[in-house]
Amino acid sequence: MDTPSLIQHIRNKGSFLCVGIDPVLERLPSHLKNEEEGLLTFCKAIVDATAAHCVAFKPNTAFFEAFGVKGWSALTDLVAYIKANHPSHLIIADAKRGDIGNTAKAYAKAFFETMTCDAITLSPYMGAETLVPFLAYPNKFAIVLALTSNEGAFDFQWSTDQAKTHLVDQVIAKTQELSHSERIMYVVGATQSAQLKHLRTLAPNAFFLMPGIGAQGGSLSEAYQAAKNESVGVLVNSSRGIIYASSGEDFAQAAQKEAASLHDQMRALLYI
Amino acid sequence: MDTPSLIQHIRNKGSFLCVGIDPVLERLPSHLKNEEEGLLTFCKAIVDATAAHCVAFKPNTAFFEAFGVKGWSALTDLVAYIKANHPSHLIIADAKRGDIGNTAKAYAKAFFETMTCDAITLSPYMGAETLVPFLAYPNKFAIVLALTSNEGAFDFQWSTDQAKTHLVDQVIAKTQELSHSERIMYVVGATQSAQLKHLRTLAPNAFFLMPGIGAQGGSLSEAYQAAKNESVGVLVNSSRGIIYASSGEDFAQAAQKEAASLHDQMRALLYI
Repeated sequence: MDTPSLIQHIRNKGSFLCVGIDPVLERLPSHLKNEEEGLLTFCKAIVDATAAHCVAFKPNTAFFEAFGVKGWSALTDLVAYIKANHPSHLIIADAKRGDIGNTAKAYAKAFFETMTCDAITLSPYMGAETLVPFLAYPNKFAIVLALTSNEGAFDFQWSTDQAKTHLVDQVIAKTQELSHSERIMYVVGATQSAQLKHLRTLAPNAFFLMPGIGAQGGSLSEAYQAAKNESVGVLVNSSRGIIYASSGEDFAQAAQKEAASLHDQMRALLYI
Repeated sequence: MDTPSLIQHIRNKGSFLCVGIDPVLERLPSHLKNEEEGLLTFCKAIVDATAAHCVAFKPNTAFFEAFGVKGWSALTDLVAYIKANHPSHLIIADAKRGDIGNTAKAYAKAFFETMTCDAITLSPYMGAETLVPFLAYPNKFAIVLALTSNEGAFDFQWSTDQAKTHLVDQVIAKTQELSHSERIMYVVGATQSAQLKHLRTLAPNAFFLMPGIGAQGGSLSEAYQAAKNESVGVLVNSSRGIIYASSGEDFAQAAQKEAASLHDQMRALLYI
């Protein structure tokens, strides 16, 4: 998927919602817990129930890997299912990989070719060069961890030990210098408006993928106003708030309702 | 595996070698390239050929994920094979994961329970808290990226923009404060002796997993002398230099020969 198509999808639908898919066995509805295909059935139902309200899906690899080979197989099937049934949705592998050239190339192959995801989240710790193999793919995105929304973000990313430049500033500045930086998005935690506004100045055109709405707190409206750019420029993720809206047999309807509520709020923000 | 057992294994064998397993289809011997089970056959043969000369195996998840479900299945089978046939060897999942609590817990389950690895490499970008779920496992290790051996290490880890403290120093200091920090090892690239000596002062007792010998250059003897502690404290990794020593049918013998040569050098260093 390219950036204009993503922007078009957002504007047409009036939504910049990304639905995060983090399936934990203990939290699956009881009628699916003991079913061989329960994991995949759950994920597909969430996708179908929320597709009308979102523009992206973000399965988190950890929750599939915890199931072993069966989980990796479910993840692969889920990506293929979304691609086939909701082809205009962006599929983000929330994998937070990050390794040197040779290895990064293998990860790019795994997620962009073998699995046909549209985007992958990446950790920048090993340097800007680690992004290069991902940026070689036209119509795919490398989504770089910048400022995350957890407490640990203050350990290094926003460390106050560093007199002049926060690490997150360096990460954005350095990665923006790369060829095909138009294929980079950033994970930016929606915690403080002042931070968001500052980070927006460092990457005016990049999409920000923002967690921290819903289960992690944070105001949708404030975050959007502080982070948006002229082409919208934000995707707001909600995972647990949507997928675990109900633990009963009505989990898909409850998820749909939650997604629809966020959709309404987003529509209002976009069509002001 | 606990630290005393690892140290005992190193001293008994006279080796601190870790064999990195990074299988790329194009580089497999031609008689294995087109075989359905070629990937796993290759990896098992490398393991059996080098086990007498090393104390650890480090399969890199990227190279397995590139093969999709078949690759994840091969990785799972490989770990089980090493566990069954070489139970005193440390199995390191070179996965470079790193995510918040809930997700980190799922990764810990994936690699320590579903797959029974002894250790996993982790990226510290999202903060020290991301290690906690891994440190909850007795007899398992969290191997944190500190200073890597690639050029990109100078982008952020050893950034000279930061007046006072390198990021890598902060990473080691902050993670050493965690409960069960005795279960932490660090990835430390063996590039400059001065850096190694400095980082050793920050974590006197931790094992350093050192890449950068062999294919990436670097002197084994210098690196060992600069980084060792009283309990040896170093594992030196070699991947491509061993597993691709020959691309012919004799690949396993060639790998054995390379591993034996490193073993000889390590024995000399340990038994001085």
